Formats: sequence, C-alpha cells, structure tokens
Amino acid sequence: MIDFISEAIKEAKKALKKDEVPIGAVIVKDGKIIAKGYNRREHSQNALDHAEMIALNRACKKLSSWRLDGCDIYVTLEPCPMCCGAIANARISRLIFACKETTSQDNLCEKILSSNRLNHKVEIIFDNTHEVQCQNMLSEYFKSKRKNKNILN
Amino acid sequence: MIDFISEAIKEAKKALKKDEVPIGAVIVKDGKIIAKGYNRREHSQNALDHAEMIALNRACKKLSSWRLDGCDIYVTLEPCPMCCGAIANARISRLIFACKETTSQDNLCEKILSSNRLNHKVEIIFDNTHEVQCQNMLSEYFKSKRKNKNILN
Repeated sequence: MIDFISEAIKEAKKALKKDEVPIGAVIVKDGKIIAKGYNRREHSQNALDHAEMIALNRACKKLSSWRLDGCDIYVTLEPCPMCCGAIANARISRLIFACKETTSQDNLCEKILSSNRLNHKVEIIFDNTHEVQCQNMLSEYFKSKRKNKNILN
Repeated sequence: MIDFISEAIKEAKKALKKDEVPIGAVIVKDGKIIAKGYNRREHSQNALDHAEMIALNRACKKLSSWRLDGCDIYVTLEPCPMCCGAIANARISRLIFACKETTSQDNLCEKILSSNRLNHKVEIIFDNTHEVQCQNMLSEYFKSKRKNKNILN
C-alpha cells in the first residue's frame, strides 16, 4: 500500500519552508494522487487557503466535477470545520489524518462529516503511523514562532 | 440603515438566472459593501464555490488580509458547515442571515461559530425581514427542478 500520509507530509514541509503552519494534504483516486496542497494562508493572506481547500479546488478542476466520489483525502492534521465541511460538500469518500487537533474538545470534525445535512457520510480514519512526526513538526513550528516573538519583544 | 440582505438577494437572483441554487452573500465593512458572491457550483463544477466562499475570497483579496475583523457577512440562507468554518477562520464579526436551513436539526452553524477552536466568536443574527422571499426563492427553484426531472423521466 502506498504511504499517502508521507506524500501529505512532503506538502507540509513545503509550507514549513515558507514559514507557514506546516499542514499538507493529498487527494487520491484509484490509487493515484490527483491533487496536492499545503497551507499558504500567510503568503496569500487568504483565510480560505488551507492545505485541504487548495487540494480540493485542484481535484475539482482536474476531474471537472464538484463531486469527488471515490476520492480519499490524506491530511497531516485533523481538519478544521471549514475543511471538514468542504470535504463533505465535495462527497469525498474517506478522510485519513495523521494527528489529532487537540485545541478544541468539541468533536466538530466528526459531527460535520456525519451530519445528515447531505445525503453523504465521509468515513474518518485516524492513521497514527506518522503521528509523532506530524505533531513534532507542528509543535516545533509554534515553539520557534514563540521564541522569535520573545526575541523581538 | 442600509438593507444589506436585499443586496444579498440581488446576488441570489444572479445565481437563479444561471440555474444555480439561489443563494447570495455580501460582506460589509464600515457601512459599505466590499465583496459580493453568488452560488455557482454547477457552472464552475467546484464544490467550494458557495456564495459565502466567493465573497470571503474577494474580501481577503480586497483588504489584502486573511483577517476580516470588523466585517459583517449578510447571507440569504443560514450557511453550511464549510461556509461557517470559513466565516470563523476569517474572523468575521457578525453573520446575518435571512432564512434558516431546515434540513438538518444539528445546530452545526451555531456550534462552529461559537467553537473554542479559535480565539474568536462570530455573532449570529437571524434577520427575518426577508425570510419569506428568500425561502420562496429556494423552494420554487427546487420545485421547478423536480418538475423538470419528472418531465424528463
């Protein structure tokens, strides 16, 4: 089985190189990556430019369809409500994420993806194979940000 | 006070003319409209192309910032989870909507906008002044769609 989380990590590292919060995503159909994305919110100054949204946008364009049936999305971090909503709206089959979002305890990701709003349920898989790597990448990023902030103050 | 919901309705009518689900949105800062959008998911075949997302994207570009502090968004229909998440991510101050989404009973819009995930809460206002008009516009659209489907079958 191809390790698609590692491909999402490669995307997250591209974000890191540009001093963005390191989050990456890839979308897979029939065993092949059809779209990739990494978080670029600061560079683009656009609140919508999360890794998942960029990948979803590209996948829709690639397939010329807003229905991404049979597609899976692999993400380095459990998606935010916007991205979960977009994943559901695009009829993605499965969401596979590498580490959990721990700030909120409200389980919103699961609630959004299993909502009866759409006649569609997204299967959610927490694949912890690369959990530590993805978590460390994020915590080191935020640690270095705080350090720089302290130096500047 | 300027009736911004009427401006959002004008956007929804543009969607209707293009045979899209009639939903419109405008974003207001300091009493002036800075961005507009209408649903165009079918024409663009893009799952992200909801009215609110198009308006948020344009507002970020206009202000060259992902932070839309002090901005209000007016929408003809209570937003879906994707759009609610995007509204929260963009730090919109207030969401004003004209009619309620009644398919789901899970109150997700409120849960997303009041989540403790972000250090930001969006004020939610249900302004029913144009509720009947917005509701009728939607129900007539879906009725005509069902009718056409029956004729074709």
